[in-house]
Amino acid sequence: MDLDFSKLDGLVTAVIQDHATGRVLMVGFMNEEAWRLTRETGYATFYSRSRQKLWLKGESSGHRLVVKETRTDCDRDAVLLTVEAQGPGVCHEGYESCFFRSLDGEEWKTVDTRSYDPKAVYGGSK
Amino acid sequence: MDLDFSKLDGLVTAVIQDHATGRVLMVGFMNEEAWRLTRETGYATFYSRSRQKLWLKGESSGHRLVVKETRTDCDRDAVLLTVEAQGPGVCHEGYESCFFRSLDGEEWKTVDTRSYDPKAVYGGSK
Repeated sequence: MDLDFSKLDGLVTAVIQDHATGRVLMVGFMNEEAWRLTRETGYATFYSRSRQKLWLKGESSGHRLVVKETRTDCDRDAVLLTVEAQGPGVCHEGYESCFFRSLDGEEWKTVDTRSYDPKAVYGGSK
Repeated sequence: MDLDFSKLDGLVTAVIQDHATGRVLMVGFMNEEAWRLTRETGYATFYSRSRQKLWLKGESSGHRLVVKETRTDCDRDAVLLTVEAQGPGVCHEGYESCFFRSLDGEEWKTVDTRSYDPKAVYGGSK
């Protein structure tokens, strides 16, 4: 079960994919503790580089990610979690996937529509 | 088109997904130059952290990744490339996807079968 946390200063990359649709929902990072908690709880838990703390995805929104399958790559420095996403979206901006912008020529264009109102979930002025 | 290269020491995370099957094939990193080359050539180009150099995926195997769509996430520190994978597999160990191992209890198990012989493509003793 050993992953290689050495190549990214104690982190591995974690790609989150919807088990039903195959859609890539988000990318996060896990330190050893987040990886342990993810396995033990069955809910995807990340390490937030900006906040420098563990982050149970959905802790404020309730939109947790239930892990269905866990894979690792040839280098063991990344994991691919196939998940059941609880709630209408994983992105704090109100979208199903954080990858809601597509490159169109020289511009990023928002190509998805919001699946929920982030103000109603997170409050504030987001 | 601006991405945020500041959060990962000059790199963004790049997730590669097969456009036909939706399968996540690999995860790599791009610096600004790799990102520019990817856009200009249409072939996924990475920055190898271990070799500290640019890396056109497929430069030795011929298994290039033709970019069909490029997305970015809410933080603009990751890109999702939907690609047409040329050749039988992207993994240097002979698999279609680098994510060929699945967690089974406490063990990583190889759950995919090889799609090509890496010795025939890369030579050497791999």
